[in-house]
Amino acid sequence: MDNFTFHNPTKIIFGKNTIGNIGEEIKKAGYSRILLLAGSGSIKANGVYSQVQHSLFKHNIEVFEFWDVRPNPTLEHALLAKKYAADNKVEAILAVGGGSVIDEAKSIAVSVGIPNIWDVFEQKVVPQKALPLFVILTLSATGSEMNSFAVLSNEKELKKWSFGSPLVFPKVTIIDPAVQMSLPKRQTANGGVDSLSHLMENYFMGIDAEVTIAVNESVQRTIISQIDKLHSEPYDYNARANFAWCSTLALNGVTSVSMSGGEWTTHGLEHALSAINPNVAHGEGLSVLFPAWITYVFKSKEFIFERWAKNVWNTNSVLDGVQAMKDKFKEWGSPITLKEIGFDKSDFSKIIKCVQDYGRLGRIIKLDTSDFYEILNLAY
Amino acid sequence: MDNFTFHNPTKIIFGKNTIGNIGEEIKKAGYSRILLLAGSGSIKANGVYSQVQHSLFKHNIEVFEFWDVRPNPTLEHALLAKKYAADNKVEAILAVGGGSVIDEAKSIAVSVGIPNIWDVFEQKVVPQKALPLFVILTLSATGSEMNSFAVLSNEKELKKWSFGSPLVFPKVTIIDPAVQMSLPKRQTANGGVDSLSHLMENYFMGIDAEVTIAVNESVQRTIISQIDKLHSEPYDYNARANFAWCSTLALNGVTSVSMSGGEWTTHGLEHALSAINPNVAHGEGLSVLFPAWITYVFKSKEFIFERWAKNVWNTNSVLDGVQAMKDKFKEWGSPITLKEIGFDKSDFSKIIKCVQDYGRLGRIIKLDTSDFYEILNLAY
Repeated sequence: MDNFTFHNPTKIIFGKNTIGNIGEEIKKAGYSRILLLAGSGSIKANGVYSQVQHSLFKHNIEVFEFWDVRPNPTLEHALLAKKYAADNKVEAILAVGGGSVIDEAKSIAVSVGIPNIWDVFEQKVVPQKALPLFVILTLSATGSEMNSFAVLSNEKELKKWSFGSPLVFPKVTIIDPAVQMSLPKRQTANGGVDSLSHLMENYFMGIDAEVTIAVNESVQRTIISQIDKLHSEPYDYNARANFAWCSTLALNGVTSVSMSGGEWTTHGLEHALSAINPNVAHGEGLSVLFPAWITYVFKSKEFIFERWAKNVWNTNSVLDGVQAMKDKFKEWGSPITLKEIGFDKSDFSKIIKCVQDYGRLGRIIKLDTSDFYEILNLAY
Repeated sequence: MDNFTFHNPTKIIFGKNTIGNIGEEIKKAGYSRILLLAGSGSIKANGVYSQVQHSLFKHNIEVFEFWDVRPNPTLEHALLAKKYAADNKVEAILAVGGGSVIDEAKSIAVSVGIPNIWDVFEQKVVPQKALPLFVILTLSATGSEMNSFAVLSNEKELKKWSFGSPLVFPKVTIIDPAVQMSLPKRQTANGGVDSLSHLMENYFMGIDAEVTIAVNESVQRTIISQIDKLHSEPYDYNARANFAWCSTLALNGVTSVSMSGGEWTTHGLEHALSAINPNVAHGEGLSVLFPAWITYVFKSKEFIFERWAKNVWNTNSVLDGVQAMKDKFKEWGSPITLKEIGFDKSDFSKIIKCVQDYGRLGRIIKLDTSDFYEILNLAY
């Protein structure tokens, strides 16, 4: 079992009718002037925004709102938000939304005192301070609500990259699964695939950390059973709640302890897909790529893939496990081929160019251009 | 799934050769004058003490040592340590040992500005501040290294009670499983039983938090497999490491999310046993009592006990599960009857008196004097 450090200081408030706590939490932490960052306005339709407003008003917190963070959030929008936050001298950031809003909020948070945020993503600058971050989660998928990572798209350079810093662990995150009951089936399925992917990126690195492997696969099984329930009954609160907590556990460190930082090839490939076509949802790219990646690499480390096929999918071979996963993704309405999400074989070289810029891919086995080509071919 | 709050800010440094980090961690946190609290001196025999000394010296940390914390630590000793800490104006506490040392350190930490520590245990006073706590764990069992609880014995009043306060989460805990390789088999078995018990105290409260139930039972299974390995090969580092992390997970909140705070009847009963006879190790008392408690209460909530029998012990009925657990405890060398640990039927009324002072017992079903008598009878 490899040495590790585990430290996750985020406070989670979880459950029905918990959003109203946000004002008190921000006040207790000593802040009274904040940037509220949000997406396209769905939080107005589902009642989240009015609960937040009410709670902040009650605790005399002055709010500066910045809207229109989009899925696959962009550097361009983050720079505008950064300027708005600085102009208004906010003391903290409140992200109200899903992973995109949280990730852009993290990027803004560390940009304090850094002229160009993108330098953090390029690892040219290590952030030394950050505005404190609070979160109201409205879509369980990325795990960003309880970790120290963020992903942002630099559209000019066709790069969808990530950074990590302990400074951006949210201070407090509120997760009310009830607000996710009205999500479209497509978003629920994407959240399921994304969360499963986070678990798998770490799981397959497993060698002898039996406890992490066992915990990780128990969370994978639970995601599958809960997304199944939500597919037939989106208003099942209990399934929403169980899935929401699984999704947080999938990338908060608990399920990746002693896993050497994870594999992340499929995420790297997917980031290339959605950098090229921002209309591709992250979960869709992953549901297309993960079966292909497993099919291509499993023979290099058969014991862990066989264990996964048996313990997660109840099948007797890796390829049967892959087929079971593809069948399940299809059942949930997720795409399983590149064709379905609008890519053509002629796009492969552009995708691979993007992946290589990203660097650092292929830990279970080292992968080069021809390997990426084969994986894309399997996913086609 | 019930609402919950999760917040565990302890930083864990885990693995081989990690003890030497302690000086740097304390220095980084801004402290240079500490109380080092320890037990009977086994840390001198296994080399832990010299590693700690060296690291503290290297970082110019002034150390005031206080020794002889015993298993089932006492209020009396804690009061002496408190005075010594105050006289020497220490800024922080470093606990080097197992759960007893950590728990006494927590009690000393919150005693700042409180004349009588025991008032905290009696819930007459809520601590408002505490000395920061650092931990080097040398025995995995109680989970105290990553939680906010402590247990102390008031010998005069025959009370072994606990308190909880977010102020006593250790700032940093270092767990080097290698230093546990030389432990006697008896202590390893006790650690296994104690950790399993923490999981079970929460597990049986489960109703619809599927993710917590699934994660919890995966940790139970891992403990059983790793203690089995250690029983035949105490120097198996990997089994030590996996068990050590299981033991931390068993009581750091991850495996008890949405479990309504747990059941804790068996712990309450056990605290009575070891308050009356401090030579009874906590793990021994638990291995005697847990099978009896399950046998007595399972019919009140059959579905969760049946799930446990199937998923943890691979048996088809609760009573078969209980028998499998007893057989396993016996195999590990743990006692399974009150007789074996020196109690007689004539002690029952004294034990029950102690339990009733403790209060708050019996959540799955309410238990009164006659119920306790029946449970003790089953354990006899």
